[in-house]
Amino acid sequence: MKIALAQLNYHVGNFENNTKKIIEHIKLAKADGADLVVFAELAVCGYPPRDFLEFEEFISLCEDAGKEIAEHCTGIACIVGLPVRNEQIAGKDLYNAAYFIQDKQIKSIARKALLPNYDVFDEYRYFEPATSFECIDFMGTKIALTICEDLWNINNNPLYVSNPMDALIQEKPDVMINIAASPFSYQHDDERRIVLADNAKKYSLPLLYVNQIGAQTELIFDGGSMVFDQNGNMLDEMGYFKEDLKVYELVGSVIAGYKPMEHKPMSDIAQIHDALVLGIKDYFVKSGFSKAVLGLSGGIDSAIVCALACCALGAENVMAVLMPSKYSSDHSIKDALDLVENFGCQHEIISIAEAADAFDSMMALAFKGQAFNLTEENIQARSRGIVVMAMSNKFGYILLNTSNKSECAVGYGTLYGDMCGAIGVIGDVYKTQIYELAEYINKDGVVIPVNTIVKPPSAELRPGQKDSDSLPDYDTLDTILFQFIELKKSSKAIIEMGYDEALVKRIIKMVNGAEFKRYQTPPILRVSPKAFGSGRRMPIVGKYLA
Amino acid sequence: MKIALAQLNYHVGNFENNTKKIIEHIKLAKADGADLVVFAELAVCGYPPRDFLEFEEFISLCEDAGKEIAEHCTGIACIVGLPVRNEQIAGKDLYNAAYFIQDKQIKSIARKALLPNYDVFDEYRYFEPATSFECIDFMGTKIALTICEDLWNINNNPLYVSNPMDALIQEKPDVMINIAASPFSYQHDDERRIVLADNAKKYSLPLLYVNQIGAQTELIFDGGSMVFDQNGNMLDEMGYFKEDLKVYELVGSVIAGYKPMEHKPMSDIAQIHDALVLGIKDYFVKSGFSKAVLGLSGGIDSAIVCALACCALGAENVMAVLMPSKYSSDHSIKDALDLVENFGCQHEIISIAEAADAFDSMMALAFKGQAFNLTEENIQARSRGIVVMAMSNKFGYILLNTSNKSECAVGYGTLYGDMCGAIGVIGDVYKTQIYELAEYINKDGVVIPVNTIVKPPSAELRPGQKDSDSLPDYDTLDTILFQFIELKKSSKAIIEMGYDEALVKRIIKMVNGAEFKRYQTPPILRVSPKAFGSGRRMPIVGKYLA
Repeated sequence: MKIALAQLNYHVGNFENNTKKIIEHIKLAKADGADLVVFAELAVCGYPPRDFLEFEEFISLCEDAGKEIAEHCTGIACIVGLPVRNEQIAGKDLYNAAYFIQDKQIKSIARKALLPNYDVFDEYRYFEPATSFECIDFMGTKIALTICEDLWNINNNPLYVSNPMDALIQEKPDVMINIAASPFSYQHDDERRIVLADNAKKYSLPLLYVNQIGAQTELIFDGGSMVFDQNGNMLDEMGYFKEDLKVYELVGSVIAGYKPMEHKPMSDIAQIHDALVLGIKDYFVKSGFSKAVLGLSGGIDSAIVCALACCALGAENVMAVLMPSKYSSDHSIKDALDLVENFGCQHEIISIAEAADAFDSMMALAFKGQAFNLTEENIQARSRGIVVMAMSNKFGYILLNTSNKSECAVGYGTLYGDMCGAIGVIGDVYKTQIYELAEYINKDGVVIPVNTIVKPPSAELRPGQKDSDSLPDYDTLDTILFQFIELKKSSKAIIEMGYDEALVKRIIKMVNGAEFKRYQTPPILRVSPKAFGSGRRMPIVGKYLA
Repeated sequence: MKIALAQLNYHVGNFENNTKKIIEHIKLAKADGADLVVFAELAVCGYPPRDFLEFEEFISLCEDAGKEIAEHCTGIACIVGLPVRNEQIAGKDLYNAAYFIQDKQIKSIARKALLPNYDVFDEYRYFEPATSFECIDFMGTKIALTICEDLWNINNNPLYVSNPMDALIQEKPDVMINIAASPFSYQHDDERRIVLADNAKKYSLPLLYVNQIGAQTELIFDGGSMVFDQNGNMLDEMGYFKEDLKVYELVGSVIAGYKPMEHKPMSDIAQIHDALVLGIKDYFVKSGFSKAVLGLSGGIDSAIVCALACCALGAENVMAVLMPSKYSSDHSIKDALDLVENFGCQHEIISIAEAADAFDSMMALAFKGQAFNLTEENIQARSRGIVVMAMSNKFGYILLNTSNKSECAVGYGTLYGDMCGAIGVIGDVYKTQIYELAEYINKDGVVIPVNTIVKPPSAELRPGQKDSDSLPDYDTLDTILFQFIELKKSSKAIIEMGYDEALVKRIIKMVNGAEFKRYQTPPILRVSPKAFGSGRRMPIVGKYLA
């Protein structure tokens, strides 16, 4: 039996495109001689559909699409993910499910049992967990079909009290197929490979795994669909960050023609780079826009965002706005212009001095006797926000936010100022990783100016200001932030690692105190296991950690 | 046996205050002759603790607080809600639970089975559902203790496949106690009363119900703890929107000294008013602030927010900033000043003309040949945003957002302009309800100027602009919005109600197209069953409804 794995880029709620793409790949797989073609979890509606699932009409549209897809399954069978209704009265109204379609008929429906409901996942918000399981019989082969998380209960501290494969294995299947919507975070590909190999080994079955690719707002799917033999050896691995279609021949319980292979690892930074480029690209493609605007300061953060945007959208679609103030250093404009020249994107230079003066004059009476402080710094940052948003409004550019994860974490940024934007490009990338990204982007020749990389970071909102005036060095800061944010360690545990007590407590307090700001930031492209946004839900008016 | 119900205002993560308050009320209840005092769900840490629950240290702090509370249970027993660890390896690491404490000992632990994971609730993110249940034996009385949602599986389309009371009733209990953290939305008090009465009737048992009060950022708890007899008659009802402590005597299965009573209903608008006042007050008290600033336009929305803020914080703590532009009508300043005088709050008048001129001049080159449009309107709104944020930064005022639900819904507002603020006061109140609120506030004498109420709504961002230029009348708009947002009806179903097809489709498209804006708005005080924010999670880059 020949099984095709279709690793595709879906678009949430775009039934027309998703259905068309699925039907095209049924035809392609059939032309390639496949007996069965396998699509990803919730392929029909895209993942994550979120509260679209609560609209009765949305579920009907999923069903309609499922029927249309079934009409094209002649001479080839198909497995495709979609939500289905729960016919029982008690329990949630939906299952996260997959059709097995043969000869235009929906022969069976597999339902997901283990519903991820942590980090960015909310599946128990919508779905009832399945409690009964049955293998698919097809061409004399018994297929144990599971959906994503259903294979992930295999570690030492299992999150769920049941294990669907333990039920399915009773039927003595010949092969496992798992369809997924497993979002990217650096190193998650390694975790996936281990979990899938462990399943193949545990159940002594070959395993075919299909993931999706593409970004849905902040969530980026990286693909990397894989095939394993019954000893847990990886036999093949599909492309990362791109669509792919491959056909495998299953003979008994053997994937014919493949030998165990080593995974060729990409560096974390290379993966993050490719993920961010895809994240930007899909945000624009899927929302129907093509042109981006950003504020280019001459610093490293906006330089990186500019580079990524040029790569994702084409330099001709990127508008960099240079907005000097009286506190901007001489080199800032030069560094920014060097970058613009290297990439060939558009630019404008718009000084914010007039706005700053206007607000000074407007506030003079109310601020009488008050000293220059953070207020005036924020006025500058917010005036820049007005300028780039004006460019966005007038010409239809979409504003890219350039805040990095370190500054998002400690609240080192101005709400409604530099925290503006439609999508946060590097808000999940620590400052220390930003430098690595710069090195990676410059690997084949300097495009990000060296001075942008080597100069001390500064917001340039008052004379001679440097990040290091109010923050520890970024190596220290990022290490403490990682322990607290990604690993959820207490201040006590971090101090025990050898960090200064006052510093650790101050940083944790800053992180917690900035929740109100992060609540109002744009969605942030997720590349780490713990990004700000829907995966991290902290109280705003809470006392703990404050 | 005498049972005290303690309806208190907790603060998420504020162990010091919560523990102190609980211990004080143990003493008060004891002084009142109570044998048992009952506190609400997750009283120890406050509700909702969100991802604080993922910090190991936070759980230890809950345990420490539980031990400290136990030390004070001499001569009185206590039921108190807190998260407890799951001692089993498989499953989530925590339960949503309650201690039953007697003679300083944790005699038993009740665990919640039905975990709400819809709308604003995410309990399955943290908690394992309980599967075994046991009554509490105390002073010869068997108590069936359940936690909030555990009693809510009683309707015709139950959300859960099990029912904890069906297990507990096997032990033939004498009384039911339910501890809750049930947030306010108008009419939810009626639903609660019906569900609780249905439980009392179904199990033929008296029922004591304890809710909490107080706001945790956007979620407002209204109290209204209740007592029912075994026929489902309500016997007593505690205060709404305030702390309360009452002692009831249970003789066998009878609450002594009470007769069935009628609920004295408050109007929806009166409830919404009190909820918003509490919401503002607790946002400030719990985050350690006292003074508010808002932009006062002379229109009805900011007038209502000003009135509510004066009521919550005292007029002396409210700063209203009037920010006329060249498009402001003559009456705007007068109406705003009348309001300021009526309430006695502080005010400043700061024209934004200089800022608007400065941006005109700054953008002149980039905008050469472009006509005045939405861009310039947004620049005005954003200049106002800078002014009120400058007042906030300079003097420590917290900015109140004044957008109403109708405009939040259709995106009729400027991101980083009038959509700024720390907390959205009326973002869950439709414009038609805003008028009712004005009438309610003016019920004992006109404080909101009549002209503010009767003049046609306008953003005053271009000459002669009126809301009705681009939106249907608010009665029509709000009805369509309610059908779509609260009831999740399809455009087809709404059109079938008799509304114009093009209009319905345009409005739904506007609502969906404004998701990117709402993602960046402040938390909104929740007073309806479906507020924008954590209870409504829609894709941004999605195609359905677009």
